[in-house]
Amino acid sequence: MDPLPSWNDGWAKAAILDFVARATREGGPDFVPVPERIAVFDHDGTLWVERPVHAQIYFTLDRLAGIVPRDPALRARQPYKAFLERDLATIASFSRREAFEVAFRAHSGLTTAEFLDAASSWFKSAKHPTLGRLFTDCVYQPQLELLDYLRAHHFKPFVVTGGGVEFVRSIAEQLYGIPPEQVVGSSNKTRVESGPGGPAIFTLPEVRSFDDREEKVVNIELHIGRRPRLAFGNSDGDLRMLQYTGRGGGARLGLLLHHDDPAREFSYDREFRLSPLDEALRIAPAEGIMVVSIKNDWRAVFPS
Amino acid sequence: MDPLPSWNDGWAKAAILDFVARATREGGPDFVPVPERIAVFDHDGTLWVERPVHAQIYFTLDRLAGIVPRDPALRARQPYKAFLERDLATIASFSRREAFEVAFRAHSGLTTAEFLDAASSWFKSAKHPTLGRLFTDCVYQPQLELLDYLRAHHFKPFVVTGGGVEFVRSIAEQLYGIPPEQVVGSSNKTRVESGPGGPAIFTLPEVRSFDDREEKVVNIELHIGRRPRLAFGNSDGDLRMLQYTGRGGGARLGLLLHHDDPAREFSYDREFRLSPLDEALRIAPAEGIMVVSIKNDWRAVFPS
Repeated sequence: MDPLPSWNDGWAKAAILDFVARATREGGPDFVPVPERIAVFDHDGTLWVERPVHAQIYFTLDRLAGIVPRDPALRARQPYKAFLERDLATIASFSRREAFEVAFRAHSGLTTAEFLDAASSWFKSAKHPTLGRLFTDCVYQPQLELLDYLRAHHFKPFVVTGGGVEFVRSIAEQLYGIPPEQVVGSSNKTRVESGPGGPAIFTLPEVRSFDDREEKVVNIELHIGRRPRLAFGNSDGDLRMLQYTGRGGGARLGLLLHHDDPAREFSYDREFRLSPLDEALRIAPAEGIMVVSIKNDWRAVFPS
Repeated sequence: MDPLPSWNDGWAKAAILDFVARATREGGPDFVPVPERIAVFDHDGTLWVERPVHAQIYFTLDRLAGIVPRDPALRARQPYKAFLERDLATIASFSRREAFEVAFRAHSGLTTAEFLDAASSWFKSAKHPTLGRLFTDCVYQPQLELLDYLRAHHFKPFVVTGGGVEFVRSIAEQLYGIPPEQVVGSSNKTRVESGPGGPAIFTLPEVRSFDDREEKVVNIELHIGRRPRLAFGNSDGDLRMLQYTGRGGGARLGLLLHHDDPAREFSYDREFRLSPLDEALRIAPAEGIMVVSIKNDWRAVFPS
């Protein structure tokens, strides 16, 4: 039985099947012991849709009250102004850092438990603006199959996301079967305060880690402590993680998803400032990173 | 067959057996689904010996070259002076933070891979100064049995240590079967630099997280993202983690190891400044935290 029915036969699918075969062939030259079978996946644009803008930005727009600075001068300034005016075109022109710092700041003051409740409850009804389905149905079917296939071969998948770690944790177990301890992401600083209900964790306004580019490697080391064997990303923000995964010998696989299917999903790369794909696409061949085309490599995009 | 043969029959052993029975009784009121079966263990003094001073301090003393500041004025100042003079009595009188910042600073400039090599190689021959055995043989046999017992019931154990995360990771898999991604600890900031061998991770001199007291709760949230069901510690540094674990309903267990057996191990609590046990011992009863006595509760201390 085909373990990856939503993947078309082609180089990408062949590379995945070959990688897993080599990594799991006991006694073979590329055998990878089970504890070292670590796979890292970017989230937005790799496991699910990130256009027109990221789900976490829609979430932030829907909960504006929390992000409005009291200072009227700030309200008239970017990036706040675009959020207050729900100006998506302007938001999409921000750098990833500009846009996400508003999103991360939006929920400071909440406890992490309160934030998780807010996100879980939002996801119950929040719909993608153009695809006509819940955000939670905007996951990529071929990736769900790949996660299952890797797990069946005793790989442990981690999400390594530029998005907020708590935001992604609120749905990662339900959508991907990935537990919170296998989600690494951006985070704000937190403070623990002891009250009658015991210690509670409050989110502070300052960013602790913006999990993008080099910082993805920093966080892989901090959270996982082991060089992954497979990495899957879709933007320049994933390039360092792909390069880090690709070095070190033995069975290794780096995959880069290219959004080139406007009919079934979206078509974009370097011009999308929130998640640009330019440098990584150019140097992928020299780095041995396999480019996956949604149009050519995926038979289906979404779960039916 | 007794799953905990090195534990004497008594309240502590009964509490552990009862906790696991309740957590795993399907349909019972305290049933805990498998993904939520998170157990957190402090390291030094909880899973292995921390007296006369911590293994990481002996490691630092044995690799002095790296920690000697160039500035002669600094060399004459504490805490450096005591390390340079190998003055263990003075080192043991430091606060945990003072002593460990020297240890953490000692290896800045190395890549994390180089540090892991140095630690692994040191552990191959480093002997405990008074117990006449390798440091790696200074683990507590009852805790090895407890870890196995918990895993047999689908609990996932994490180490949450005030020690350096890379230092503990270098032996956690070998000693406890705990993989690097299940070790949370103190860490310095790191920087990723790209070279011909791909991205490499360098340790910087500044502390990123000193994983003690409230910070243990901060890091449990950051790394695990879920409130644990069982926590085991041995000092005031573990109190917040024990309190955090103890709240929230359902099957929960907090355990606090009291070192009260000078014949077989060591006897100490509030006077050991590197790892004091005072407040936690006083409020344990009111918090429902079970105090475990090495003398009374452990039939054996070390593996034979």
